[in-house]
Amino acid sequence: MKKIMMMAAAVLMAGCAVAQDVQLPEPNKNVSMTLMDALQQRTSQRSYSDKAVDDATLSQVLWAACGINRPDSKRITAPSAINAQDILLYVLRADGAFLYQPISNSLKKVCSEDLRQPMAGPQQFAADVPVGLLLVSDQSKFRAHAERYGAMDAGYVSENIYLACTALGLNTVARAMMDAKVLSEKLGLAEHLVPMLNHPIGWPK
Amino acid sequence: MKKIMMMAAAVLMAGCAVAQDVQLPEPNKNVSMTLMDALQQRTSQRSYSDKAVDDATLSQVLWAACGINRPDSKRITAPSAINAQDILLYVLRADGAFLYQPISNSLKKVCSEDLRQPMAGPQQFAADVPVGLLLVSDQSKFRAHAERYGAMDAGYVSENIYLACTALGLNTVARAMMDAKVLSEKLGLAEHLVPMLNHPIGWPK
Repeated sequence: MKKIMMMAAAVLMAGCAVAQDVQLPEPNKNVSMTLMDALQQRTSQRSYSDKAVDDATLSQVLWAACGINRPDSKRITAPSAINAQDILLYVLRADGAFLYQPISNSLKKVCSEDLRQPMAGPQQFAADVPVGLLLVSDQSKFRAHAERYGAMDAGYVSENIYLACTALGLNTVARAMMDAKVLSEKLGLAEHLVPMLNHPIGWPK
Repeated sequence: MKKIMMMAAAVLMAGCAVAQDVQLPEPNKNVSMTLMDALQQRTSQRSYSDKAVDDATLSQVLWAACGINRPDSKRITAPSAINAQDILLYVLRADGAFLYQPISNSLKKVCSEDLRQPMAGPQQFAADVPVGLLLVSDQSKFRAHAERYGAMDAGYVSENIYLACTALGLNTVARAMMDAKVLSEKLGLAEHLVPMLNHPIGWPK
């Protein structure tokens, strides 16, 4: 009974009902673009087609962002201050909001609502997009300089997202603008979990 | 006369005498490693050989970090909040300290002293290195959220440095530890120029 009540409390905290998780396909790392070409071609894009971003592509972007690159030590593609690995990466789609799980390469559904509009805030172009990524820093991982280190670590993950999108032919832009209050409520984020940046992602028009 | 006095004042501000600038070779972008392989292989390394890092290699790392990738608009490889391009990149070597000039692909000598020791702080491994890079945020570029945005932007540039070093076979690690007070004095950094991170860089032992 206690367990059921705790589960119910967790659902209430999250602000919306949770449902099934998603196992992602293995990320295909056989992508031909060189690092230097990705750096040469990286830009911020604010226009996207309606075409869906499939889970195979999403898996590549998420792995590049902060996936496991050293399975033995559970270290990841993005460095972080004191190896805190404080950045949580949420996927916001029409079918709900999901937390990326690097170790199992899966998406944990945390909300059934479409949160792309609060991610966009007043900039409609960012809501009209197949997928949004939300970067949240777990500030409890730091004993000092949490704001600075969390922001740096968001920058690391964000640059990986930019470069992966470039190599995969996707458009994206990093944005600090969003309705962080609504996102935090809907995702059930405690105070130490701070939304830092978001990335609308889609194919070029 | 006024001009000469202003120049003299600039030299005094910098804390040490300035001398010749360095025109870097064009960065060779024909580097075969794919982005995905660079992400797969990126690690933090704290051991370096004494072998010099030549200017051709340095030019590649600096371009990848925050070089011009769109000459018409003067936009660079690293995104930045409100496109502030607030990160100044200093090169610290035995022959002095230099400010990277992305547009002319050159190094402007700002100090004749070797500043690798204050960059290292108490961690000697970081002083025993051919080249150190210092990332400084110009906080005057922001009207709000300067600490957060400057830190994010340092993260963007730092990730580019990590990935470029990986692709070029260099070792590096991002460090927040340093004697920022001494560095600021020697480099003549005004209060709005805030050292964020540094990167010792060298070949593997």
